[in-house]
Parts: sequence; C-alpha cells; structure tokens
Amino acid sequence: MSYSKPPGYLALSGGVGGARLVLGLAQLLPPEQLTVVANTGDDFRHLGLVICPDLDTLLYTLAGWNNPQTGWGQSDESWNFLDGLAKLGGETWFRLGDRDMATHLMRTQLLAEGRSLSEVTAQLSVRMGVKHSVVPMTDDPVQTFVCTREVRTRDTSAEQRTRLAFQHYFVRDACEPQVERFEFEGIAAAAPSPGFMAALEARPAAVIICPSNPFVSVDPVLNIPGVQAGIKATAAPLIAVSPIVGGQAIRGPAAKMMAELGMPQTALGVAQYYVESYGDLLSGFVLDQQDESLQDEIAALGLATSVTNTVMSGLRDKTNLAAHLLDFAARL
Amino acid sequence: MSYSKPPGYLALSGGVGGARLVLGLAQLLPPEQLTVVANTGDDFRHLGLVICPDLDTLLYTLAGWNNPQTGWGQSDESWNFLDGLAKLGGETWFRLGDRDMATHLMRTQLLAEGRSLSEVTAQLSVRMGVKHSVVPMTDDPVQTFVCTREVRTRDTSAEQRTRLAFQHYFVRDACEPQVERFEFEGIAAAAPSPGFMAALEARPAAVIICPSNPFVSVDPVLNIPGVQAGIKATAAPLIAVSPIVGGQAIRGPAAKMMAELGMPQTALGVAQYYVESYGDLLSGFVLDQQDESLQDEIAALGLATSVTNTVMSGLRDKTNLAAHLLDFAARL
Repeated sequence: MSYSKPPGYLALSGGVGGARLVLGLAQLLPPEQLTVVANTGDDFRHLGLVICPDLDTLLYTLAGWNNPQTGWGQSDESWNFLDGLAKLGGETWFRLGDRDMATHLMRTQLLAEGRSLSEVTAQLSVRMGVKHSVVPMTDDPVQTFVCTREVRTRDTSAEQRTRLAFQHYFVRDACEPQVERFEFEGIAAAAPSPGFMAALEARPAAVIICPSNPFVSVDPVLNIPGVQAGIKATAAPLIAVSPIVGGQAIRGPAAKMMAELGMPQTALGVAQYYVESYGDLLSGFVLDQQDESLQDEIAALGLATSVTNTVMSGLRDKTNLAAHLLDFAARL
Repeated sequence: MSYSKPPGYLALSGGVGGARLVLGLAQLLPPEQLTVVANTGDDFRHLGLVICPDLDTLLYTLAGWNNPQTGWGQSDESWNFLDGLAKLGGETWFRLGDRDMATHLMRTQLLAEGRSLSEVTAQLSVRMGVKHSVVPMTDDPVQTFVCTREVRTRDTSAEQRTRLAFQHYFVRDACEPQVERFEFEGIAAAAPSPGFMAALEARPAAVIICPSNPFVSVDPVLNIPGVQAGIKATAAPLIAVSPIVGGQAIRGPAAKMMAELGMPQTALGVAQYYVESYGDLLSGFVLDQQDESLQDEIAALGLATSVTNTVMSGLRDKTNLAAHLLDFAARL
C-alpha cells in the first residue's frame, strides 16, 4: 500500500483582494496543502528600506495582524515615526506605521546580510505564526513601472512623466495618471522562487488566480520565464476569480485601468484579457452573482464558468468563496 | 575703523551631561558665538541604521525635543516599532523610539546618498530649528571599543570577550564589564570635521570641555590628529568641567570606570587624568562646590580652578553654570 499526499493548491495573489481569498483558503486547507505566491513587482526601496506590500498584506492577513479598515498595514498601529519624519522634512506619502516599520527594517537587514527574499519571508512567517506557505514570486528583482499617458502630478522631470514606479503611481499619485501600458523591469532575467517552483512540481490540484489586479498583480507572476510552462506541466486547472464585480473593482485601480486601456470594465473584460494574454492556459473563471448575465459570453471564450458571491466582507464570505473554488476545481 | 566679530566659544561634548551645559551656553550666546563639537566615537550601525547618540542628544536638547526623564531620546515618544521588532525576534536592547526612528532613517539615507555627517547634521539642525552650530568631531569613521577585564555577559565569542563596541558595553551590557582600556578605531586616519576646524581657526575666546565622560566622550574628540595642536594654536584657554561630583558621576559610568582603572573617583582624579593626558593644554578646571576641599590639590596640578554648583537640574542651573564658565574664561 502506498501513501500518497493529498494534492495541494497554489494561489497567485496580489495584495488586499487576493489576501481575502487566501485567508478563506487557509481556513479550509491545512498548511501543507496551500502555497501562496505573492506578486513582488510592487516592491520598492523607500527611505533605504525594502518594502514588499503584497507579501506584507498576505503575511499580516494570515497572522491576523492586518488592519481590516485600511486593507494594508497592521491593526493597533501608531504613526509617530511618520510624524517625526514629516518634522524632519522627509517623504511621508507612503504611510509607514510604527509597528509596520519593524517588518521593513528586519527584512531590509536580512536581505543586506545576503539572505534571499524567500528565506526572509519564511523567517518572518515563522515569527508571525503564519503556518501556510507564503512565497515571493521570485527572489530576483522585478519592478513594475506604469507608463502613463499624461501628467497629473506636479512632478515634471522627463523620466517620471511617462514612466512611474508602481508605488509612485499607486500611492503618491493616487492612481490619477492615465495608464497606457506596464513594464516589469528585470522580469526577463527572473526565475520563479524555489517555493513557487516546488509548488508547481508538486502537481497541485489547481492553480488559483486570486481576485487581484490582472495588470499589476497577476501579470508579473505569470510572466516570469518558466511559470506558464510550469503551470501547463502540472496539468492542473488554472482558475481565475474576477476582481471586477458589477463594473467596479472591489479594491484598487483595476476598473479605472481597464477603461483607460480601452477594455470593458466588466468580469467579461477580465476574462477576455486573460484569454488574450494566456490562451488556453486558463480553464476556469469565477464571476460574481451580480454579473451572472455575462456568464454565457465568458463561457463562449472557452472557459468553464462558475457564479457565486465573490464580494468578501466577513470571514464567512471568504471561506464560502474558497469552498466554492475548491469544489469548482474538483469538477474541472 | 575695522569691525571685529565678537569671539566665539567652542564646547566639546558627549551626550546628556554635556548637553545640559550646552543648553545653558545656548541661552547666553547667540548662534554665531557657539560651536558644539559632538563625540562620534559612540556612533554605531544597528539594524542597518547609522545611530549617533551624542549628536542626537545634543540636537534634541537644543531643539527642546529631548526626554528629560531618560536623558536620551525624544519626549512624547512611543515604542511600537520596538514592540513590533520584539515580536519578529529582532534585537531590542537599544531602545529606539518611534519618533527617534525618523532621525536615524533620515541620517542613514542621506549618508547613503553620499552626504557627509557634517552635512547631514546641518540639515537635521535646520529641520529641528536648532540655531547654534552642532558639528560632529569628524566626518570619518571612528569607533570606540571598550576593552574589558572579564566577561559578565553570556556572549563568549573570543573577539567580543575582551573588546566591546561601545554601545554593546554601555547599553546592552549596562556597563557591567570591568574596563581596562579604550580603543578608538579609525582615529589615526580621522580629520576634524570642517565645522570643528573652522571653529578652531576662528580663534575662540575659550574651548570648554563639557562635564562629559573623560574616557569615552572627551578623549575621542581630543585625540583626533590635529585637534590638540589646533587648540594650542587658538591661544584660548581650555577649560574642563568635572563630570564627577562628590565621588559620583552625575550620569553614566565615568566613576565606575575610574575605579576600575585605579584612579581616585573624584574631581581631582579627573583633573589628574586630563593633566597626565594633555599636559599644559588644559588651563582651567571647574569643580562642584561639594568638592571645594579638592580645589588646592587641583590647583597644585598647575590649573586655574573655579568652584560653583555644577549639578544642573533645571534650566537656571544650566544657565548659571554657563555664565560662571564664561566669566571664568574671561579671567584666564
């Protein structure tokens, strides 16, 4: 009699929206059956610190340290560092809480000592009591730039007029500039992180694209050389959850970006974008019950579809969506 | 008719004790008439941050940001960064407040961008509203090590058994190891900072050694190549204020160090140490009224002496001591 491990699941995630589903999945799956791959294209160096917003949101969410009001940072947070920095004339547009600073400082120091981002993330996970495996998409530097059509900020330096580092676009400029396209600097030379590779090689039961921003959270993960081939080799279904519900992004600028890129701001638009970008790599698509009328058109793209409530307010919503996804995956 | 600038004063200072007198001097002297040279031998890199404890204490004190209870750090401080760091398993023996972190981060970043410590200090001074000139003793790396007779900590690595970086001795090990001698690593290659040089060349009316630790606050400043010759060239009196009153150090380990080094733990011991170390460079010595009985013995060392209250509790004490010093200097 041979013992076979139950198959695991692989979730590809950006920040807040993805982290909600990941928390639901973590309620249902034991640690050895879930690997969460975090987008690191949003990472940046700020005030000398290496900041990994999506990794932090995922870790804080799974640790129960997250601030449910803001969606980022820690709960029970104070802001005296930032207040002090303002007095000294420092840059305060990126909101660094006092507790949050500990994460950034520790990560920056461990990286400076030569550890990989995967090693640092594993160490932080242990310290935060996060049992499920959260890994960066890559240990190599990949940086998302947003190429914009116009300047809405006062910053008129030529370089920054048309090409904004993601956090400058997202936080400093509050997503105001109109996007034209995205660049993932360094991605051609990047390799999937060891944990990402291992999860692919473990032949997961399904690969789940969380309801994250397709352009700046999902595309970086899927465009690391080897990732698409790795997913194909698993023979597992790749299932996406729409981040657009009723024509709105639940969080963040996804809908605004779609409009600026000339796409329909709907779940159908998301499905079309994924199919155009990744062909038959995608096999399933989960849309919200509000968008049920789009189901046939999405199915016509060659995707298995499933309709449920994807708006996750409380933990029950998160767990229900996760259960729905696992059930949908089992049927593909 | 020629215009001549009124002569300035130069104060050499460590942390808390020195900063008290400096605050008194700053009440009496306009900014252009006082330059404060801070010891930087205590500076260290910790958690990736460049931390300059004596510079910070001086700046915070002159800015009115200092915490009068602790003697270090800022008032109205919170500790959530350190609490977060403890949760992540980081080193928390050096107490970094949330507001204080802004200073360290900004300094570290500006230094990383290639600014000198003098430039960074000037920028921080402006932002803190400090009008008097506070300059580091040098822009070059000088690091104080405490060579200890025995190990009182659990740290048994051979290197650290007998040679402790100053903050490890001072804060982490709470000054428990018995000292044998001190080393100022890098001092042979260090030059006085531009502001220190300029203040010497401006022919000050007096050079004041603040009531700071002779071994770890004053010696590093006076042992930078060129400093003793520079002081001699000013022809100004060099006047020291005893940090030992009634056989006790007002702050810090000076008295304990003197006992361990086999010196009398008295103002006389301090005067003897300065005369042995610097010969006739020192011309005046100010001792506390509690130690009046030592005045003749100190005078017998060839020093002009003056007795007053040197214990500075409130601002009035600080200003009174400063006024006494300026008056004493005028008579030398």
